[in-house]
Amino acid sequence: MPSFTVFKGSKDGVRKSTTTKPDELTGDQVLIKVTASGLCGTDLHYKTTDMALGHEGVGIVLSTGPACKYLQQGDRIGWGYEHDSCGHCGKCLKGSENYCVERAMYASADLDQGSFASHAIWREAFLFKTPDSLSDVDAAPLQCGGATVFNALRAYNTQSTETVGVMGVGGLGHLAIMFAAKMGCRVVVFSGSEGKREEAMRLGAHEFVAMKGKTELKVERKVDRLLVTTSAQPDWKLLLSVLAPEASIHPLSVDEGDFQFPYMGLVAQGLTVQGSAVAPRGIHKDMLEFAALHQIKPVVEKFPMSEEGIKEAMDKLERGDVRFRAVLVAE
Amino acid sequence: MPSFTVFKGSKDGVRKSTTTKPDELTGDQVLIKVTASGLCGTDLHYKTTDMALGHEGVGIVLSTGPACKYLQQGDRIGWGYEHDSCGHCGKCLKGSENYCVERAMYASADLDQGSFASHAIWREAFLFKTPDSLSDVDAAPLQCGGATVFNALRAYNTQSTETVGVMGVGGLGHLAIMFAAKMGCRVVVFSGSEGKREEAMRLGAHEFVAMKGKTELKVERKVDRLLVTTSAQPDWKLLLSVLAPEASIHPLSVDEGDFQFPYMGLVAQGLTVQGSAVAPRGIHKDMLEFAALHQIKPVVEKFPMSEEGIKEAMDKLERGDVRFRAVLVAE
Repeated sequence: MPSFTVFKGSKDGVRKSTTTKPDELTGDQVLIKVTASGLCGTDLHYKTTDMALGHEGVGIVLSTGPACKYLQQGDRIGWGYEHDSCGHCGKCLKGSENYCVERAMYASADLDQGSFASHAIWREAFLFKTPDSLSDVDAAPLQCGGATVFNALRAYNTQSTETVGVMGVGGLGHLAIMFAAKMGCRVVVFSGSEGKREEAMRLGAHEFVAMKGKTELKVERKVDRLLVTTSAQPDWKLLLSVLAPEASIHPLSVDEGDFQFPYMGLVAQGLTVQGSAVAPRGIHKDMLEFAALHQIKPVVEKFPMSEEGIKEAMDKLERGDVRFRAVLVAE
Repeated sequence: MPSFTVFKGSKDGVRKSTTTKPDELTGDQVLIKVTASGLCGTDLHYKTTDMALGHEGVGIVLSTGPACKYLQQGDRIGWGYEHDSCGHCGKCLKGSENYCVERAMYASADLDQGSFASHAIWREAFLFKTPDSLSDVDAAPLQCGGATVFNALRAYNTQSTETVGVMGVGGLGHLAIMFAAKMGCRVVVFSGSEGKREEAMRLGAHEFVAMKGKTELKVERKVDRLLVTTSAQPDWKLLLSVLAPEASIHPLSVDEGDFQFPYMGLVAQGLTVQGSAVAPRGIHKDMLEFAALHQIKPVVEKFPMSEEGIKEAMDKLERGDVRFRAVLVAE
């Protein structure tokens, strides 16, 4: 099995291609048959780039390299944005390998393979067993979207007594609502229109605020922690009034410009702006176990893992019409 | 003693004035004879406002109200930016009364008295005993400048193994160098020119970087925590290269505009931007004890507590010529 199918970005859209790897697995490499992959907003950024796409992968172990220790053929596993790290720097040693300077991340390393594929070969050290009570389709969006929002909550010491705001009800936002609610937090959802109110409340929200056209916002209780999952940055001046003193703001989406926030609001209210990128492995594992225990399952739309399926899913995501995460399923 | 001298801002500059208070102290009020006051950049902002100036006060207790419990006549005390808080909200109850919504702060409450004065009356609950080993002149700049930088370090869990960057060697910056160095941290100072190198190293810095004209910066070890004490915001794009992943940035000065920072640097490197305003009382007390134990004494220039003295000190501070904190001393 040295050759397998991948789907790559290109100027003409997503194209099926073949990646060839050495015949033998070395070290702790694992050959995986991909069964499903989530489609993340980040993938859209690279759809015209010559690289294999996809980073919310789920599959089955086909074979393992000589140094593998805990996985074996037939195991159900998943992987996310990070494929490798140096293992010996301060960040790796304290379990923050997602900030290792030599981290191998999606779109900057291993461009010949991704999760939009028939197969992939990754290091065992960066694979995560899929809990029995989660299906492959359930588990796929958790590998990046789930990890990202869970990490923002878990790594920064969210308390069950907090009011957590979730801005945006999409791939990340709908997972953030469920995770925060199951952590015991009071959850306030900020959305554009009223359209997603019912679904947000069903997912566990306690309050829903439609922001469109509002020049001032009111909430029953001010927000201690705000997860911002919208693709565009919000009107921070408007939001300042719903943030409690000492609130944390977690910008979780991707933006090429500047983060621009009223300076004195930040200082005088003791606010924290907390950047974070996906999750280190320890928190990724905790996230999967937490999701399994509380049966936190993404709301998905399925598409076939094919050029047509990927194109259809990407188009729908770009229009903002996916409720709430597209999952590509192996045919 | 119902009447005393205060120095107020006005359109024509600082003016001597008289404040009259009720004859009898009530509750836990304390009548203080002011012996010294630091001059803070914030005071410059209000020099044309009709209010009593000064918030780095030090003095001696003259008399105490009926509810006072721990202070008595003759005690040496100081006070800072905050004069009161509600005492029953979540922030007060967890010792973050500096973020109490009803906090009484300099320039927004008690505008009839300040520390540029002969006397003042404040609540005992917001006064701090001056340690024996600190003089009144030593203790004055600690009440706001010292509290602000110590709080940024102490409240956000600074570890002795961190590299702490201090940007700006002035009233706040020179204290930050000393506090961080005595906490065991490696201290890197970022200054405009080479002019303050020797003094910064003498205060405890381990590395000094002159930024003027630089288009890229290099440091021996990247900065885990950066205290920004310059009055103008720095070039964040330039600084990004000297920040370690997961670094914290503490903007400590006052600015009317926006905090504007490269978005992807913030997210991809897991940076924290931490706003903070002065210090809660628990940390203010720790700061005074820490300063006393380690003999952390501000470097000061003394001026007389008079219209002329205040004007001279303010002019010098505005020109950026004070090394490093002006202290007004009662005549």
